[in-house]
Amino acid sequence: MPSVVCSDASSDPLEPLFFPRAVAVVGASAVAGKRGYKAVQGLIEAGYRGAIYPIHPREEMILGRRCYRNVEELPGEVDLAVICTPAATVPGLVEECGRKGIKGVVVIAGGFRESGPDGERLEEALLTAAQKHGVRVIGPNTSGMFNLTIGLDLLGLRGVRPGHVAFISQSGNMLLSLVLEAQYHGELGFSIYVGPGNQTDLGFNDYLRFLGRESHTRVVTMYVEGFRSGQRFLEIARAVSRHKPVVVYKSGATEAGKVAARSHTGALAGSYSMTVDLLRQAGVCLVQQSDEMLPVAEGLAAWNAAPGSRVAVLSDGGGQATIAVDRLVEAGLSLAPLEEGTVRRLASILPPQASLRNPIDVAGASDDNPAILAECLSILAQDDNVDALLLVGMFGGYAIRFGEQLMGNEMRCAETFAEWRKKHDKPLVVHSLYAPIKPPAVRRLREAGLPVYASIEHSVRVLQALAERGHHLRRCSEPDARHVSPQPCVREVFLRAAQEGRNPYEHEAKVALAAHGIAAGESVLMRAPEHVEQVLERFGDRPLALKIVSRDILHKSDAGGVRLDVRGREAIVESYESILASCRAYAPKADLHGVLAMPMAPKGVEVIIGMVRDPVFGPVMMFGLGGIFVEVLNDVAFRAVPMTRDDAESMLRQLRGNKLLHGVRGLPRVDEARVVDLLLQVADFVRAYPEISELDLNPVIVHEQGYAIADARFLLNPNVLPLEGEE
Amino acid sequence: MPSVVCSDASSDPLEPLFFPRAVAVVGASAVAGKRGYKAVQGLIEAGYRGAIYPIHPREEMILGRRCYRNVEELPGEVDLAVICTPAATVPGLVEECGRKGIKGVVVIAGGFRESGPDGERLEEALLTAAQKHGVRVIGPNTSGMFNLTIGLDLLGLRGVRPGHVAFISQSGNMLLSLVLEAQYHGELGFSIYVGPGNQTDLGFNDYLRFLGRESHTRVVTMYVEGFRSGQRFLEIARAVSRHKPVVVYKSGATEAGKVAARSHTGALAGSYSMTVDLLRQAGVCLVQQSDEMLPVAEGLAAWNAAPGSRVAVLSDGGGQATIAVDRLVEAGLSLAPLEEGTVRRLASILPPQASLRNPIDVAGASDDNPAILAECLSILAQDDNVDALLLVGMFGGYAIRFGEQLMGNEMRCAETFAEWRKKHDKPLVVHSLYAPIKPPAVRRLREAGLPVYASIEHSVRVLQALAERGHHLRRCSEPDARHVSPQPCVREVFLRAAQEGRNPYEHEAKVALAAHGIAAGESVLMRAPEHVEQVLERFGDRPLALKIVSRDILHKSDAGGVRLDVRGREAIVESYESILASCRAYAPKADLHGVLAMPMAPKGVEVIIGMVRDPVFGPVMMFGLGGIFVEVLNDVAFRAVPMTRDDAESMLRQLRGNKLLHGVRGLPRVDEARVVDLLLQVADFVRAYPEISELDLNPVIVHEQGYAIADARFLLNPNVLPLEGEE
Repeated sequence: MPSVVCSDASSDPLEPLFFPRAVAVVGASAVAGKRGYKAVQGLIEAGYRGAIYPIHPREEMILGRRCYRNVEELPGEVDLAVICTPAATVPGLVEECGRKGIKGVVVIAGGFRESGPDGERLEEALLTAAQKHGVRVIGPNTSGMFNLTIGLDLLGLRGVRPGHVAFISQSGNMLLSLVLEAQYHGELGFSIYVGPGNQTDLGFNDYLRFLGRESHTRVVTMYVEGFRSGQRFLEIARAVSRHKPVVVYKSGATEAGKVAARSHTGALAGSYSMTVDLLRQAGVCLVQQSDEMLPVAEGLAAWNAAPGSRVAVLSDGGGQATIAVDRLVEAGLSLAPLEEGTVRRLASILPPQASLRNPIDVAGASDDNPAILAECLSILAQDDNVDALLLVGMFGGYAIRFGEQLMGNEMRCAETFAEWRKKHDKPLVVHSLYAPIKPPAVRRLREAGLPVYASIEHSVRVLQALAERGHHLRRCSEPDARHVSPQPCVREVFLRAAQEGRNPYEHEAKVALAAHGIAAGESVLMRAPEHVEQVLERFGDRPLALKIVSRDILHKSDAGGVRLDVRGREAIVESYESILASCRAYAPKADLHGVLAMPMAPKGVEVIIGMVRDPVFGPVMMFGLGGIFVEVLNDVAFRAVPMTRDDAESMLRQLRGNKLLHGVRGLPRVDEARVVDLLLQVADFVRAYPEISELDLNPVIVHEQGYAIADARFLLNPNVLPLEGEE
Repeated sequence: MPSVVCSDASSDPLEPLFFPRAVAVVGASAVAGKRGYKAVQGLIEAGYRGAIYPIHPREEMILGRRCYRNVEELPGEVDLAVICTPAATVPGLVEECGRKGIKGVVVIAGGFRESGPDGERLEEALLTAAQKHGVRVIGPNTSGMFNLTIGLDLLGLRGVRPGHVAFISQSGNMLLSLVLEAQYHGELGFSIYVGPGNQTDLGFNDYLRFLGRESHTRVVTMYVEGFRSGQRFLEIARAVSRHKPVVVYKSGATEAGKVAARSHTGALAGSYSMTVDLLRQAGVCLVQQSDEMLPVAEGLAAWNAAPGSRVAVLSDGGGQATIAVDRLVEAGLSLAPLEEGTVRRLASILPPQASLRNPIDVAGASDDNPAILAECLSILAQDDNVDALLLVGMFGGYAIRFGEQLMGNEMRCAETFAEWRKKHDKPLVVHSLYAPIKPPAVRRLREAGLPVYASIEHSVRVLQALAERGHHLRRCSEPDARHVSPQPCVREVFLRAAQEGRNPYEHEAKVALAAHGIAAGESVLMRAPEHVEQVLERFGDRPLALKIVSRDILHKSDAGGVRLDVRGREAIVESYESILASCRAYAPKADLHGVLAMPMAPKGVEVIIGMVRDPVFGPVMMFGLGGIFVEVLNDVAFRAVPMTRDDAESMLRQLRGNKLLHGVRGLPRVDEARVVDLLLQVADFVRAYPEISELDLNPVIVHEQGYAIADARFLLNPNVLPLEGEE
């Protein structure tokens, strides 16, 4: 048995599938173009060094390899079988593979779950057979798999360069697209590809975990149409992205949220923007334009991360520098303010008309001496204010544009760039008008692993990805696994509500929050006019808000169920009576439980804090600016629970309207630290009570010294038994 | 004198410059690589058929052409001279050219205005010399010019394909970038290029006007760093874009607004977003990513416009259709709802697993019969609900992917597409994974003038540009040139304010508006407590707002200068006194003119209507949602004056928060027609009074039945003499 290169993930159960010692092709074909032909051909042409066993009932030889009649006949130890036969035959074949001790199968055929009830049964039979023998399954309905680090190519795509980018894709055409782009534009190569197909057994999560440990893979790229176990995916992505970039394109950007919900948080959850937030929280580099996938993967493979977001732009003149600056600023990057020493050193080598402040314009100095660009970049690289460098303009094309005599000079410059990675840890991204022409200097850079882009937009997108990854690596930490015990008094409240077939009343929700140290504010429930005495005893002559408490009235204001700025015995009693009268008129059959009296909230900024248990991603916190910001602009941030303090802080920063927290229009400057505390407390709280399916604190009035929770609403899921909290 | 092709713009003063009968190269050089060598070489290599006269003091021949000692020696009639000598020599040479009757010069040298006071004087001398003889000047400091329709190439860029796209660019490198991209990716060719340089004489406006009439040019593309006569540019762009697409990339997207201003409108004007709005109003196709310029120009050259925004997407499966749908919806396009007949006809030719609803997925049917795509597209083209078609996937690559035997079939399909334009006026945009490989089928489409894109994003961007252009062409009309006469009573008010060195008070501004039929609301100025009688007489017991009137107090609320909901004699007098007391305490030296009493505005949505005279673009109207929307989100729309009703209507639609006008959160649904009327009335009003430099109606409270102008402020420009209105 010839040995094959092994990954560092050698103890992984997926190891035998991606690094098999021998491969059987079930349903091998002698007919060119057939899937069972391409698989054998791919293995041979890609130089797979393990044994290749075509299985065919009649053929003696296929592509010069001896055929076997069936799985049972196979000689020696076979780790992987690729099954190219129709769906109906698959469960039986998997059974055979299991009996033979084969560890994994790749099932190409469609016609399973995706095709209806018959296919679903077939897929169940497949899984049963696989589980019986511990056979792991890639697919069914997969575009296939390759591992070019050992020449294992089950797809038979020709001319794919081996390299360091892995790809997991729910679309085979997306692989084709990336591969063609890579062939055409650069020197990017691929390590492992896998199409998860129906994910009957193995899925995104397993592949990502495996590729995170696989040593040839520097960047894991994914095309995802939908996640299944999203919560687990986030955990794995968080772990993998700590040491290797994970790039995801998630389709469905314009899908409407699908979660039917009664709360604000529920209505906004399940959206594409929620998925974006959660993936970013896990450290994923999310690309939102499909044509950015390859450039971003290439850039991250080359540089991994940037130490900061201050970029020095070096140009040979022209509009490109202007455009680059526009794009940099739009992308949240900044122009590095150069040290005086840097400016002096640049001045000593550049002509007087050069622009020495960032963006630096050499003003023609490179036209007859391209190598001056390397000198400039070396000077810039030593400036502590510079985190990354962007060269824009003609590099690679000087000899073409200004004469062949410049070729030597330009190639020397390319050599300096090629050495860059050994000397500097600051990313250098090169934009070249001549990139598509692939002149020698551009080829040299790419061979050295330095990407060169023809698009300024892509160059800047790569710098943005590097800076964001750097930021994430510096800030990320394990979410604090605080244990929060559920309180018996809270459980009692929930139990009573559940027995009465309703959700907790506002005052009950606030009691529950208060039991966990959350300042939910005091309130008094009036169930009779006489209760005014308790109200006065508790609140004196402070101005009060009075609100109806009813399981049947959701929109309290519409029902006339709210009175504000009420003060004094008489006014309180009058308001109490008139609230009940209005609500009775508004909804004659409504169960009116009482009227809640509480002090008016101080002046401040309305925010909304929510939680929803997403069916895919589990508990998710939401933060937004209240009122029209949420309702008109959907300006909200999401984070998966548990979250770190940095996660919570970044929710505030992320809002488009976050200026509102900093004191505009006479509003107070908000105590952001207290808001962050509250977000973390609520995240802990919901972990203790899995029976809360949605939570809405809306609005919370935040101000200079803290906050007031003006309203609180929980939705209970009657199907969740109270547990002893989530750990 | 050999004749050269002439444009349709033959009566244009720029005609002899772009279609010269003979060209002199002043400062011609025998040294390869020099500018004066390249110009001669470019003319010869591009096949210019007019006479070429190199001018050199000593050389006899350059590149086989006879040299002349100086301009005076030139034989025959020369229309154009390209001057390649240093700046200092230029004014004298222009003088010589003028004496010789040369109609235009291209001045390459830098070292004029852009280099300091000496250069500025040199540029003035250049202009004086030119104007003396009626010589028109391209440049100075220009990258040059070409007109490939007659082989007039003064740049000497090799391999640029002649075609139908003109380009005006403030950056020579942007030309290089487009040219290289065009050479590499497609079959796009160029008609005329010109670099405006310092625009001493001729500038953007002249070139755009000329190219608008020039018959070879189908699309005018521009790279602009800054406009000078922006108002005139908008007029020309509006006229040109009626019959040919104008594509503009405007750099400076992230520049902060530069206009120092005291009003809200002033603070938001002068921004990039204002420029974007005004260019779009003029029918310009604005691209905001530099790498979209070429694809968009190519698409507009091929299709000009789409009849609507409903797109049918046809795919051969895979993720590309999903991605395309995401991008289409993001771009404001929609998926065409197919007619039942269309679905039936598709069903009759596609396999049962195909997806027949838009996006249409042929589900493998094209793998062995690419030509089925042409059949599907023909069916879709006949559907009246379909305005444009997008093919995504592998087209062009079937023979590569599935075997050479498909080549004939695939080429037949390409032939059908190539015939498309003769049969249908619905744009067909083709995306192909294989576009970069340029297989024969892709080349065939491009030869037929059908662009093929490798990027889904670019494909959709082109469809968006076509739909927007179609929309503009259907809606655009000449702005109504209503004549509005200034009223003597208004002039009197302004004059008095000017004499007192102040701007009009709120009530004066409202009187001025009312004089032009704008419902500015009634108010009574109280200058003594006794004036309460007039207030009561006018408003009875309606609840009132009382506001300080003072030239020195800008922020009335901060000064305690506003009282709301005041009712009855006693309360009015008390409020009057306390407003004056507060303001006196707040600003002891302020001139307190009085207190204005007016009825409280009804409940509604706060909007802001403003006007500013932009130094570049002239009078510009602004519309935004009041309060935090303007202050936190800068959610405003701009339109140049004069404007059409459609312009005004589109201002409302454009706002991100425009949902607020449709009745959310208990707010009334706004009477949009009345708001539009008001915008048009204000636009007319400011045309009558050029002395108003800024105008702010902020807030205007709009509701179901109209609006109330709650505050009005005009800034007068003391340097503008009252004129008899602008015509």
